[in-house]
Amino acid sequence: HVEARSIHHVGVAVADLDAAVRTYERLFGGRLEHRELVDDQGVEAASLRVGDSRVELLAALEEDTPVGRFLAKRGEGMHHIAYEVGDVAAALERLAAEGVELIDTRPRRGMFGLEVAFVHPDSVHGVLSEVVSVG
Amino acid sequence: HVEARSIHHVGVAVADLDAAVRTYERLFGGRLEHRELVDDQGVEAASLRVGDSRVELLAALEEDTPVGRFLAKRGEGMHHIAYEVGDVAAALERLAAEGVELIDTRPRRGMFGLEVAFVHPDSVHGVLSEVVSVG
Repeated sequence: HVEARSIHHVGVAVADLDAAVRTYERLFGGRLEHRELVDDQGVEAASLRVGDSRVELLAALEEDTPVGRFLAKRGEGMHHIAYEVGDVAAALERLAAEGVELIDTRPRRGMFGLEVAFVHPDSVHGVLSEVVSVG
Repeated sequence: HVEARSIHHVGVAVADLDAAVRTYERLFGGRLEHRELVDDQGVEAASLRVGDSRVELLAALEEDTPVGRFLAKRGEGMHHIAYEVGDVAAALERLAAEGVELIDTRPRRGMFGLEVAFVHPDSVHGVLSEVVSVG
């Protein structure tokens, strides 16, 4: 198995990024640490610290994007869990050896320029799962 | 706002608790720390440490329970985010003052006998949110 160090963040799909950032500030004391357009994923993302943890809010740039389709189908809500690992490529090898369906067979660049890869929810009881390395 | 210290756990609804525990062990090195029938919520729950973090797997004891209805409607997947707070009653007062729709207006006992309360997803962009105190 992968040596997951912790949950790096929980990803949440939202309709209105500004409104969602304010909600997390107002309810749970969230502090915005980073906001970024990730064009190749078709999202604008806002990373918030909530205490020692992190929530990543994701708004779709277009309807015909993964997050846009998620929102159209399911509405706003929890989107993925990201686990911090030491090495994304090594994690993908171990996951592949377990017969897991990988969305990304190689690491790619996500928010903050970090290496990330996604695992298909069908292999994790319906949970879209991400591995991320903070390098 | 509430002073959330961290994400205490992420709750995941699953069809087969044994199978899901094995998946988290096998893929992410999850370590089962606790397993419990929570009759009044109609669930059997398994709490797993994943690195320093925690995933709570929830299986419905009956179809006509909140988690049973969730599974029937949406299938397996992410169910809630729980934030650790110092005092659940105080957190509920602050959330109520923000106009939040509370599912629990008073703390109740959850897993491990901890004080917990749930906030309606309509107030948190579709995310069922829990506050929990480790006492």
